[in-house]
Amino acid sequence: MNLNKLLKFDDKGLIPAVVQDAKDGTVLMVAYMNREAVRRTLKLKKSVFWSRSRKSFWLKGESSGNVQKVKEMRIDCDGDCLVIKVQQIGGSACHTGHRSCFYRKVMPGGRLKTEGKPLFDPKKVYGH
Amino acid sequence: MNLNKLLKFDDKGLIPAVVQDAKDGTVLMVAYMNREAVRRTLKLKKSVFWSRSRKSFWLKGESSGNVQKVKEMRIDCDGDCLVIKVQQIGGSACHTGHRSCFYRKVMPGGRLKTEGKPLFDPKKVYGH
Repeated sequence: MNLNKLLKFDDKGLIPAVVQDAKDGTVLMVAYMNREAVRRTLKLKKSVFWSRSRKSFWLKGESSGNVQKVKEMRIDCDGDCLVIKVQQIGGSACHTGHRSCFYRKVMPGGRLKTEGKPLFDPKKVYGH
Repeated sequence: MNLNKLLKFDDKGLIPAVVQDAKDGTVLMVAYMNREAVRRTLKLKKSVFWSRSRKSFWLKGESSGNVQKVKEMRIDCDGDCLVIKVQQIGGSACHTGHRSCFYRKVMPGGRLKTEGKPLFDPKKVYGH
């Protein structure tokens, strides 16, 4: 079976990609790819997503230098989701400076508890 | 900040949930929840999804007994994705009998390599 035959994109031509730290399995972020972004990711061995807000390709870390080196890609049974195991350069995947975008834990009653501190100041890295 | 205020659903009223093994961090599956499924998951402490194919609530493991005991829920920076850390009863999350739905690795050229063996015979557990 070949990846291209199995890949199923949604009605917007996208597939979600779960980005996981290759070493300890922490889920760093979830973003979306179209067919060309999958191709570029495999070719460059760096995460390339489709930005739904900017409607453009998004080489993660292109401006900051904090790219994600892709160590492994997996596809699920239905072919409609990817897992990408990466080495996150700079340590943080999240635009807030946190290592993972999932830095808030849901507590009883729905209260959110922030865990850990940002590893960098997003203003300095992203200039906004 | 409260979960209900932060949660962002897509144009179908859904949010993706990455289900991760609470012990070793393996990504077991990705499924979707609507607001009510999130509420039921938190109340029952078992994964409840919205089945996009059957268009109904889906208490994972309801027929097989292989439920997912929810140990932790996390939400991402944008509020449009969840991570759920679970104890998978029966060991396998995938309907194929594999522990994880992501049992195929993408090899050079797009070839897919199956890793591991199914832990159960899906015909016996699901009857199809």
